[in-house]
Amino acid sequence: MNDLHERIAASFNAQGLMTTLGARLAHVQDGEVRIELPFDARLSQQHGYVHAGAITSVVDSACGYAALTRGPEGCDVVTAEFKTNFLRPAIGQRFVAVGRVVNAGRQLAVVTGEVLAHTANGAEPKVVALMQATMVYVQPR
Amino acid sequence: MNDLHERIAASFNAQGLMTTLGARLAHVQDGEVRIELPFDARLSQQHGYVHAGAITSVVDSACGYAALTRGPEGCDVVTAEFKTNFLRPAIGQRFVAVGRVVNAGRQLAVVTGEVLAHTANGAEPKVVALMQATMVYVQPR
Amino acid sequence: MNDLHERIAASFNAQGLMTTLGARLAHVQDGEVRIELPFDARLSQQHGYVHAGAITSVVDSACGYAALTRGPEGCDVVTAEFKTNFLRPAIGQRFVAVGRVVNAGRQLAVVTGEVLAHTANGAEPKVVALMQATMVYVQPR
Amino acid sequence: MNDLHERIAASFNAQGLMTTLGARLAHVQDGEVRIELPFDARLSQQHGYVHAGAITSVVDSACGYAALTRGPEGCDVVTAEFKTNFLRPAIGQRFVAVGRVVNAGRQLAVVTGEVLAHTANGAEPKVVALMQATMVYVQPR
Repeated sequence: MNDLHERIAASFNAQGLMTTLGARLAHVQDGEVRIELPFDARLSQQHGYVHAGAITSVVDSACGYAALTRGPEGCDVVTAEFKTNFLRPAIGQRFVAVGRVVNAGRQLAVVTGEVLAHTANGAEPKVVALMQATMVYVQPR
Repeated sequence: MNDLHERIAASFNAQGLMTTLGARLAHVQDGEVRIELPFDARLSQQHGYVHAGAITSVVDSACGYAALTRGPEGCDVVTAEFKTNFLRPAIGQRFVAVGRVVNAGRQLAVVTGEVLAHTANGAEPKVVALMQATMVYVQPR
Repeated sequence: MNDLHERIAASFNAQGLMTTLGARLAHVQDGEVRIELPFDARLSQQHGYVHAGAITSVVDSACGYAALTRGPEGCDVVTAEFKTNFLRPAIGQRFVAVGRVVNAGRQLAVVTGEVLAHTANGAEPKVVALMQATMVYVQPR
Repeated sequence: MNDLHERIAASFNAQGLMTTLGARLAHVQDGEVRIELPFDARLSQQHGYVHAGAITSVVDSACGYAALTRGPEGCDVVTAEFKTNFLRPAIGQRFVAVGRVVNAGRQLAVVTGEVLAHTANGAEPKVVALMQATMVYVQPR
């Protein structure tokens, strides 16, 4: 675990929502972050699948932390906006949200994200959601 | 509480995520639905404000149920996509998410949403997030 | 025609695309700008309606100039991103794009836009497109 | 030039806007379509770069036609919504818009697009815009 991973892990652990959802920081590298979310009925929408909001929460955090790996030293990151398309019902045993930086400027970063659903039977994971987001670099007060 | 409210309340209560977040169905009328979310540290991002994902979860549900008030009889609704802009940090004692139908066709509905932050001091609530979404009407299997 | 209108008119007239599309700056006030686009077969998609790209072009300019009315003195504005929903085919004699500022900070502004289609028969204009956009304030070099 | 290419070329040629902008259908394959747009001052925004609306117009058409390559036989396609991030000023000699299908269902397709700027000096092309869109399959009347 390097400095970058440690710094992002500290921030991730300070996100009450990630604990509430049961999410786990899975992978950090330059320009890319992965967050894992095991299925839980506590995260469902009305049909029992995982709610679009839970899926969005983890991929938003993955995108934000991906942006952070490319941000100016000492800065923090907040979400300006995101857009998510839902491709199929979020059915699976666990979900992996991946955020990847497309372009990072001084003020803003454009990041794409996807969420892959892994099923118990070991079938090829399927993309359930696609995100395109703008992150803002902010100086801590 | 009329039929429409009852039907939406039943669906809302089946959404595990709404219970997990502590959200409450506050208001249902033709073309508009409101959901209330009290502040809780369990919903936070790394600075202690409410996470963009929690804010998005409640306004997504409000938009989906608003669409449902205008859907073909007996249908259900799923989110095709949404886009959310975050205007300021989600600081407040409670948050009210409002979903409003702009246009409802046979297959798709376009819905806008906003989330208002109410503070303890009774100041004018402030818009913290703005959503523009596409909902799909689906026939229950 | 006041200073703000003059300044925006000068910028609008420098947009080659607005001339190419046949668009006209129709109205400027604090926080709101309107651009008019008469129907022309040169703007069509494959069914003869106005192309989503032409509709988006005028509402993007309207949103950008609306943001400019609230920007820091002497600054210019560029589009960070926008999202547009198309509610119905863009059929009409002329189209009015309206951009309205929802929130303007020092760096970014969040703006909403809509495009209204006016028909020859004088019927109530219909919303054909809805935009939600982020504009960035930039200092001229 | 195969059947698919011919069919899309016929539709492309019926888009008045593509002719007005000077765009050219460059490539068609299963799940991917490319449209080329040479720089022209007639397409500019106020600083002389290509207007976000012109960039969006060509990538929207590329995304729509990409969706069409995966659509049910005999159907047509219209844009439900798109979201575009602008990564840098659209400076270049020519622009290549690429649309790629991520997922195509019976009613809707999710498509991503990007626009690459090619400069005269032969430098590596740069991504100037990123799109994430929803297309709707419609039966011709």
